[in-house]
Amino acid sequence: MKSKVLKDFDTNDRIVVLNPADGDPRDPTTQLAQVSVAQKRLLVNVVFSEALVEKGMVGFPPALAKQLGVKSKKPVSIAPRNRPQSYDIIKKKYDHKPWTNDDIRCILDDIYNENLTDLEMAAFTLAIQYENLTMEETENLTKGFAYHGTQLTFNEPVYDKHSVGGIAGNKVSLVIVPIVAAAGLLIPKTSSRAITSPSGTADTMEVLADVSFSAEEIQEIAPKTRGMIVWGGHLNLAPVDSKIISRIERPLGLDPESIIIASILSKKLATGVKHLVLDMPTGPGTKLETRAKGTSLAHKFVEIGRRVGIEVECALTYADQPVGHAIGPALEAREALETLMGKGPRSVHEKSVELAGILLEMARLAPKREGSRLADEILRSGKALEKMKEIIEAQSGNPNIKPEDIEVGQYTAEVRAYADGYISHISNTAIKKIARELGCPVNKKAGMVLLHKAGEFVTKDTPLLRIFATKESHLERALSVANNSQMYKLEGMVIERISAAPID
Amino acid sequence: MKSKVLKDFDTNDRIVVLNPADGDPRDPTTQLAQVSVAQKRLLVNVVFSEALVEKGMVGFPPALAKQLGVKSKKPVSIAPRNRPQSYDIIKKKYDHKPWTNDDIRCILDDIYNENLTDLEMAAFTLAIQYENLTMEETENLTKGFAYHGTQLTFNEPVYDKHSVGGIAGNKVSLVIVPIVAAAGLLIPKTSSRAITSPSGTADTMEVLADVSFSAEEIQEIAPKTRGMIVWGGHLNLAPVDSKIISRIERPLGLDPESIIIASILSKKLATGVKHLVLDMPTGPGTKLETRAKGTSLAHKFVEIGRRVGIEVECALTYADQPVGHAIGPALEAREALETLMGKGPRSVHEKSVELAGILLEMARLAPKREGSRLADEILRSGKALEKMKEIIEAQSGNPNIKPEDIEVGQYTAEVRAYADGYISHISNTAIKKIARELGCPVNKKAGMVLLHKAGEFVTKDTPLLRIFATKESHLERALSVANNSQMYKLEGMVIERISAAPID
Repeated sequence: MKSKVLKDFDTNDRIVVLNPADGDPRDPTTQLAQVSVAQKRLLVNVVFSEALVEKGMVGFPPALAKQLGVKSKKPVSIAPRNRPQSYDIIKKKYDHKPWTNDDIRCILDDIYNENLTDLEMAAFTLAIQYENLTMEETENLTKGFAYHGTQLTFNEPVYDKHSVGGIAGNKVSLVIVPIVAAAGLLIPKTSSRAITSPSGTADTMEVLADVSFSAEEIQEIAPKTRGMIVWGGHLNLAPVDSKIISRIERPLGLDPESIIIASILSKKLATGVKHLVLDMPTGPGTKLETRAKGTSLAHKFVEIGRRVGIEVECALTYADQPVGHAIGPALEAREALETLMGKGPRSVHEKSVELAGILLEMARLAPKREGSRLADEILRSGKALEKMKEIIEAQSGNPNIKPEDIEVGQYTAEVRAYADGYISHISNTAIKKIARELGCPVNKKAGMVLLHKAGEFVTKDTPLLRIFATKESHLERALSVANNSQMYKLEGMVIERISAAPID
Repeated sequence: MKSKVLKDFDTNDRIVVLNPADGDPRDPTTQLAQVSVAQKRLLVNVVFSEALVEKGMVGFPPALAKQLGVKSKKPVSIAPRNRPQSYDIIKKKYDHKPWTNDDIRCILDDIYNENLTDLEMAAFTLAIQYENLTMEETENLTKGFAYHGTQLTFNEPVYDKHSVGGIAGNKVSLVIVPIVAAAGLLIPKTSSRAITSPSGTADTMEVLADVSFSAEEIQEIAPKTRGMIVWGGHLNLAPVDSKIISRIERPLGLDPESIIIASILSKKLATGVKHLVLDMPTGPGTKLETRAKGTSLAHKFVEIGRRVGIEVECALTYADQPVGHAIGPALEAREALETLMGKGPRSVHEKSVELAGILLEMARLAPKREGSRLADEILRSGKALEKMKEIIEAQSGNPNIKPEDIEVGQYTAEVRAYADGYISHISNTAIKKIARELGCPVNKKAGMVLLHKAGEFVTKDTPLLRIFATKESHLERALSVANNSQMYKLEGMVIERISAAPID
């Protein structure tokens, strides 16, 4: 069979079109098929139309063609989907039975090879949510995720820092990586783009330099600069995990603990990480709402890390409000640079040296509890800033960029205090909503700066927040959200005044 | 918008086609939509093609058009799918929390109204599989299933018999209904067509009479004849349950206990049943592999029945082998008629009078433990046969049909004993496989007759099984399965002879 890209058949679903002469539309087994093009394979739904494709052709909608790298008239093979061996293994959980290492490997192989339908993958993912995996199963899941896809290899141990997500304004990686690299350790950090938060580390770094590098490029550059900050999504790390996330977890808003652990540690395994500090933001509005939850998850991370050969130390971090003042890619990049120059906010400086210090201790460059002091020295000495310039240059950015050179949105407005009071809370959820209205993280220049933070006393009409937008309409929508979302909570305020009985 | 039936776009998936002018193919929210035509609503995937539909038209593939009763140029409304309120309720089970009655009603409403995707429905169904519902939740699920769809109402209590599936050759309903109706009780039995077994009660009855009747027809005919045997699938009983079965349970091979109970009892609630005898075939190859499982499920059925106002008595029945000798719609209809004429196999006779007897006891027509004697009297007196003729006539069949008038497949062959021995086991699974090769239950004339049953001693080459096929190719395939499946297990046989070391 030959491929045909269908300009006139548009869908984001995984559907291909055959001519009725090439299959029996009434046979239900032909409705689901495995399509292979070059090295790629995908499970697709098959529809039939004489008008859209000639006999002998497999028609691909444009989005799917792009995903598979299909051009017209390339050889394609299409076969009825094999009944997956692994589905019987998934069903063991219907009877609450454990999965062996071979079981998990078999399931993940079938997901990798596109032998499982979304429903069957959901049965697997929901088994993990409902049944809770044992430590042994989680260990095997971690190794299993790391098995498929890209493997980065280095001739020395890799150090890394990772955040268990969920908090706005977390630009500390841009400070930690140069500190650790300046100390001589190897830290080629792969990071993600934001999905629901205003800016991921990769989005922020992209303001300063390129972040898309191949495995070969990273393996060549990182040993020289000692540090990099790149986008991991480009690298095909743990692709089975990515399929589960995009097809099941995201549509269902699902995030089972064992997959959180396996997802993070498998990517670390695949990138050669041997020592890892995990930033675990804890508090309302984060994944870890209570300290007890944070501690429990941390213990599991340490144990699974031990089992797969990664030294893990977790730091439960304060996350009642954003770290620093800046939110949004450009503004965060600016704040990170300022911190490296010694003039950033105290919270960014402190969190960065604390987490970097843990890695320095793991490397025996400092005694226990003394790592943050060494990290602080490196930062204050200007060596971290020099290292960051080196990294930016190696990643094709401008090493001499100054914070004030970074462009931000030209439409600005302020949100002011509606009463006198102490700021008792700043809502992470409200920040995310405002950032979404501004178009972050795609709109790199958009964002906001918190002018006052929790604990401070403000008088009525004091500016609390400055918003930066790239379009006037964005600014208006963001302001409307900011004014309606109780983003700042002021103690002593009047929440509501009632002067009449409610209308029924 | 107007509908268009697309002769040249063939799929069994739920897909509609729009002209790109009527939506934005790049907007992911337009890829999933609710389509409403007349009273019917469905959640569909949307694809775009200028070639297939003009602006202002919604194109339906033929199978979907048929399902929705769509003809070309009918008004259709299509709207982006609403985010379901109920999904947050489903997610309560991720934290192992109970569902209230309102919770369950809200979820089922959203399934009924096509607000949930298959993945979200899977999260619901798998929650029930993994988490096990409480009795209260199962009660609410039962009432919830019964809420939507058709309700049959009668001016008197309805009696019913139902089998918890999974056994071949179970034609006893065709004997029980006329016995109970002859005793004066109202028993309008709705039954199913077979999915994986050789013949469902509706398939077997259809050999003798029509089985598709509207709710109004049943409400009119049944009070006169006292009994009917109709196809329930025609009636839109508990449609939410049906959606869960066809979209989730069947593709996943899933059958959680709470849904087994709710599925059966909800249909009984919707048809006005007040007294129910449940046939629970127990043994290897059935749903209830052990007696302990059968007893446990029976207790739950009785309790949920009590809570929803149905008196339930369960009979765990012997199911190590088929009841009677005949398998397949025509052969089973023949055997049921023979039993009503007093010349059927003992196992069919016994099982029928035992189960009918329980209903007679519930109606106080016989004292406890004496019901089967009364049922036996009714059967032997010929009153049940007369009643069956009356029912067949009322359902537009030929009341004077004789067993030998029923046509069966003209291609026949026998399977013979491969050794001397006692028949220790007849495999239900093998019977199902053979029947599938013969095309049962669609091929009504195909089937098989067991010439000897478990416990009997047979000598080598004794005919054990006679197969009836409507095509020679079917016969060959069925024979091949019969000879390779160890359908009959003979004690003392040589299973395998080994004269060389295995090749590695």
